[in-house]
Amino acid sequence: MKILVINPNTSISMTNQIRAALETIKRSDTELTVTCPQKGPETIESAYDEAYAIPPTLELVKKADRDGFDAVILACFSDPGLDAAKEVAGIPVVGIEEATLHMAAMLGAKFTIMTPRRQRIPSKVEHVHLRGLSHFLASVRSLDLTVAETEADPGKTKQRLMEVSKTAVEEDGAEIIIMGCAGMAGYAQEIEQTLNVKVLDPTAVALKTAEAMVDLGLCHSKVGLFAKPPEKLFK
Amino acid sequence: MKILVINPNTSISMTNQIRAALETIKRSDTELTVTCPQKGPETIESAYDEAYAIPPTLELVKKADRDGFDAVILACFSDPGLDAAKEVAGIPVVGIEEATLHMAAMLGAKFTIMTPRRQRIPSKVEHVHLRGLSHFLASVRSLDLTVAETEADPGKTKQRLMEVSKTAVEEDGAEIIIMGCAGMAGYAQEIEQTLNVKVLDPTAVALKTAEAMVDLGLCHSKVGLFAKPPEKLFK
Amino acid sequence: MKILVINPNTSISMTNQIRAALETIKRSDTELTVTCPQKGPETIESAYDEAYAIPPTLELVKKADRDGFDAVILACFSDPGLDAAKEVAGIPVVGIEEATLHMAAMLGAKFTIMTPRRQRIPSKVEHVHLRGLSHFLASVRSLDLTVAETEADPGKTKQRLMEVSKTAVEEDGAEIIIMGCAGMAGYAQEIEQTLNVKVLDPTAVALKTAEAMVDLGLCHSKVGLFAKPPEKLFK
Amino acid sequence: MKILVINPNTSISMTNQIRAALETIKRSDTELTVTCPQKGPETIESAYDEAYAIPPTLELVKKADRDGFDAVILACFSDPGLDAAKEVAGIPVVGIEEATLHMAAMLGAKFTIMTPRRQRIPSKVEHVHLRGLSHFLASVRSLDLTVAETEADPGKTKQRLMEVSKTAVEEDGAEIIIMGCAGMAGYAQEIEQTLNVKVLDPTAVALKTAEAMVDLGLCHSKVGLFAKPPEKLFK
Amino acid sequence: MKILVINPNTSISMTNQIRAALETIKRSDTELTVTCPQKGPETIESAYDEAYAIPPTLELVKKADRDGFDAVILACFSDPGLDAAKEVAGIPVVGIEEATLHMAAMLGAKFTIMTPRRQRIPSKVEHVHLRGLSHFLASVRSLDLTVAETEADPGKTKQRLMEVSKTAVEEDGAEIIIMGCAGMAGYAQEIEQTLNVKVLDPTAVALKTAEAMVDLGLCHSKVGLFAKPPEKLFK
Amino acid sequence: MKILVINPNTSISMTNQIRAALETIKRSDTELTVTCPQKGPETIESAYDEAYAIPPTLELVKKADRDGFDAVILACFSDPGLDAAKEVAGIPVVGIEEATLHMAAMLGAKFTIMTPRRQRIPSKVEHVHLRGLSHFLASVRSLDLTVAETEADPGKTKQRLMEVSKTAVEEDGAEIIIMGCAGMAGYAQEIEQTLNVKVLDPTAVALKTAEAMVDLGLCHSKVGLFAKPPEKLFK
Repeated sequence: MKILVINPNTSISMTNQIRAALETIKRSDTELTVTCPQKGPETIESAYDEAYAIPPTLELVKKADRDGFDAVILACFSDPGLDAAKEVAGIPVVGIEEATLHMAAMLGAKFTIMTPRRQRIPSKVEHVHLRGLSHFLASVRSLDLTVAETEADPGKTKQRLMEVSKTAVEEDGAEIIIMGCAGMAGYAQEIEQTLNVKVLDPTAVALKTAEAMVDLGLCHSKVGLFAKPPEKLFK
Repeated sequence: MKILVINPNTSISMTNQIRAALETIKRSDTELTVTCPQKGPETIESAYDEAYAIPPTLELVKKADRDGFDAVILACFSDPGLDAAKEVAGIPVVGIEEATLHMAAMLGAKFTIMTPRRQRIPSKVEHVHLRGLSHFLASVRSLDLTVAETEADPGKTKQRLMEVSKTAVEEDGAEIIIMGCAGMAGYAQEIEQTLNVKVLDPTAVALKTAEAMVDLGLCHSKVGLFAKPPEKLFK
Repeated sequence: MKILVINPNTSISMTNQIRAALETIKRSDTELTVTCPQKGPETIESAYDEAYAIPPTLELVKKADRDGFDAVILACFSDPGLDAAKEVAGIPVVGIEEATLHMAAMLGAKFTIMTPRRQRIPSKVEHVHLRGLSHFLASVRSLDLTVAETEADPGKTKQRLMEVSKTAVEEDGAEIIIMGCAGMAGYAQEIEQTLNVKVLDPTAVALKTAEAMVDLGLCHSKVGLFAKPPEKLFK
Repeated sequence: MKILVINPNTSISMTNQIRAALETIKRSDTELTVTCPQKGPETIESAYDEAYAIPPTLELVKKADRDGFDAVILACFSDPGLDAAKEVAGIPVVGIEEATLHMAAMLGAKFTIMTPRRQRIPSKVEHVHLRGLSHFLASVRSLDLTVAETEADPGKTKQRLMEVSKTAVEEDGAEIIIMGCAGMAGYAQEIEQTLNVKVLDPTAVALKTAEAMVDLGLCHSKVGLFAKPPEKLFK
Repeated sequence: MKILVINPNTSISMTNQIRAALETIKRSDTELTVTCPQKGPETIESAYDEAYAIPPTLELVKKADRDGFDAVILACFSDPGLDAAKEVAGIPVVGIEEATLHMAAMLGAKFTIMTPRRQRIPSKVEHVHLRGLSHFLASVRSLDLTVAETEADPGKTKQRLMEVSKTAVEEDGAEIIIMGCAGMAGYAQEIEQTLNVKVLDPTAVALKTAEAMVDLGLCHSKVGLFAKPPEKLFK
Repeated sequence: MKILVINPNTSISMTNQIRAALETIKRSDTELTVTCPQKGPETIESAYDEAYAIPPTLELVKKADRDGFDAVILACFSDPGLDAAKEVAGIPVVGIEEATLHMAAMLGAKFTIMTPRRQRIPSKVEHVHLRGLSHFLASVRSLDLTVAETEADPGKTKQRLMEVSKTAVEEDGAEIIIMGCAGMAGYAQEIEQTLNVKVLDPTAVALKTAEAMVDLGLCHSKVGLFAKPPEKLFK
């Protein structure tokens, strides 16, 4: 099967990092393309950033549908443009956040989401609320690093991830830790071994969810929330 | 005070219609500017339409902030780009949906939202859920008309509004009817008189909410969910 | 427009204080009357106090309706008698708590309510729950002062307000602080400037909400929850 | 044990009817006093009626506490003044609505509340929401009779109760029917036998709950929500 | 009336302890039988333990129904097999957890559940959520003792109960403490006197609830959730 | 990978049917074993049936863990024994209900669950509530057939499935239909094509979810809700 992974920001290095990580876990019969838009913000840390990342991302989604891909993954842990993408696509579109939240809810009583900036905590809480999974949420905790810092300083990122995860486990009762930013994915295994909790890498979870949907011949329903948008004039 | 009303779609006629309606209700000391973006969809009927309407709308929001406006109103009943607008603006930004849902919750036990297309019902329900007001929701009911038809055929629109509102009152227990599309606003008074329920025109409610906020010197809080987005490279 | 503000307790000094505060913020075309019942408790700090404050307050509401007022405000942050007042009145009745909670929900992700006595915390939480806004609630925090002490010792009140607000911001993630008692209103500005969060004065918010409702020609719906009570014998 | 049952309205005939019904079900070691206030509305059908019924009811509660009663029951299915009564009393106060809703939640998946007037439906729904039991609520259905008509025309009341209960069972999935007004209590058994569902008489349930509390030496907790109101001046 | 109390584990000593405690509180006209299954786990501390305790418990429930008992109580604070027991029985079956949670919700704003092992906290939280009572839950706190240790070391159990209850009251705002394990029941009174909060012994609450149901002629409804299971082949 | 699918009832024919269906959809590198216990009920239609099906099912789960399976699937749409199975297993255990509910929540706004018997509707609603997904639930609708009839009369089953699904789509707004019983799985495709909605076969969804978990090296967290049960005496 052919799966397109879209990193909705314009960072080539992060796109490469995602590709490298997914290559190690994809099925042998999965043909993977990992790309990013040419226009838009280099990192996505606000609703404002999302707003400008979405239209070019949707162009890539539409192209994937026309080009015969079997599924699309939006690889940013806030699922920017997910509803719109499902509307325009006739193939499954998987958000890494939604796939991961639902997976986490099957694996334990409480999960904690790690997020780079403190200001995004309410937004994460809201997303969990919207999906109905609030009672599975132990906490959202921030590294107090920008996404750029997360990428630039691996040592500090790892140290912060480890200490904040420890707090989540000990104080919030987290049984599962969700790496809420692509830049955190590489540290999952070490945290898992040190703290004895499960750690989820959202991009990997989304890839496996997409493969499962394609195997099942599934797509989102096109008769209601994700119906094809009516044709109209765009100025 | 100076208030900018942005119709997030690119329909000049709808923009004019909103301006005309608000002129009759604005305070004498309110200086009103009603505008719309030059690029984007002519009507907004899907998450997809919203995605393309938001960036040009945000440009207008930023300009309003720079130009010394006291408040901004987003005049589309799905509040497209509201969170992002609040992030970038240092002045109050009022979504007509949020202002109206909160007003409705003070006026009765149950409200019904009238929406043009059936496919948008789940999206409206989701918005109400996100605001915590689900137990005030009698129903979302559709006219089964496109936004364009709503504008083009006033006779049919009025007839459908009247019969669907009647059903909402009699079958769903609605005490309040919300006109969930700018094209419906002109019929509020007649429905109110015929059915003896309160009918809310969201754009008018939002204008008064904005005037109230400016009088109070209020703005959204800038330390959390609506903090200023971090500076970064936009390609 | 003519607006009656009822302080539901019998404290003349608090009534004067409310009048003075509102005079500075009312619109020039708003004719304001601020009054309080002649019978009932001097402060309202329990459901028991509310029970005895409500009937004389309702008499004032009925008189306001007969005397041609355009709206009534109940100026006690637990909205005592609000539902009953809406039933008997044909004009808008605004509770300062309901108006403020809905306003706060538009201004940030999380608000904290300051309340004088610790024992009223559960009651405040319940009110927020009843309105569906629990997920906007960062916390309810008490000054551990009686309402009388709040009035009598401004220095201590200010100091407690400042330190408790700081805790709310730092530990509970509050983006907005609600002054949950008339006696706290005078300190809003200083807290706002010191802590960089928004601080809401409920009486002021309610006045502006009432002005907005009158401008909109709105009243609560009279066909359901707030229908006129049936006539009957009162012994 | 000595239990005081207060009918919060001033109808002597309804008070007598409650006494007669409870005498048949009380334990032999329970000494029952059934009374009503001398002032206030003859029936309670609105928040307005409740407001005037509560203060004289609270006087009876305080007297019961002084006079050595072991428990008090408020016998009106909207629990008027319940929180205030718990505050002033050092003995258990049982509301017939709260006792019955909690009992119903143990007896099946869904209950329906029968209420006289259509306009009170939202209020009943709100009470269930406040107690957290919304997902047990099949429906609230009205007889479309005033409380006075319920008392005056037993034939019509019985017929309406039977047909509305049948609808609740067949259309709403009710497994349990709650007689939401003292005037309906006498018909419970016949509905139970005809429709094969359980029918709860709230006053009887409350009596047995009160007896249970007294046996257990239980009272509401006095350290938080139901703490004794602070002393103060009542004008 | 004849009531059968089933301790679902196979510990004779705990069964004796329950019997002794209930004998002191049962009504004089209540004939009490306290028993436990002959097969199954000696203590119940996991869903796994529950799974093996349930079938022999159900055999005792069926026998009680055949033998003319008026009600059955399941005396383990996780209500193992409660739904199944209600299905097969034509007499009331009372779970000590459900009876106690509903009683607690009438007695204060917030309760804390004491549980032996930390790992069962999420399970308790889930049970409260399922009953809709989450907003009454101050916390679930563990003694960090196994059930066996609770029984074996009364001194340590008492000390831990006292210190953990104190934390619940001071940090979580608990107004009521629920002894979430039969082995804790004996310490209720001392905690109540020391901390000035109400302490509930679930088995006692369930006995009184069962007596109330029998007096009322009540049973769970047999037309829906608790309908008799269809006959079928059991291999 | 080696996956064990346990049909928790004792019906050989249903076990064979599940095996045949999954063989057509399993990955080529998945080694599938489908089995059922030798003791227990032939169909599972009540909490009572579940109670007796669970212990022999858990024995099979424990054996699978010892025998080196990579994952276990519980193939009955009420997930009997799922929590206990997760406790005793060190490998992922997937319930077909939980996997399907979470998948459905990603594919549309509203799903309907088809269930054989009317009496199980409340139980299904409760399960959805417990998972937090109530706002995705359009309805639970019954075929009014026993599980045995579902198996015995394919013609009638198909006709009922088609007409009930149609009602779910047209009256309840279902965008997705979940075949809530193994006996319904064969009709998914035809309903999907006729009604233009997505139809989920829970066993297939669970298989793909299990394959995804194994690929990801995931298991449920063992530090909280699903911790290993403490050792103890089983009589």
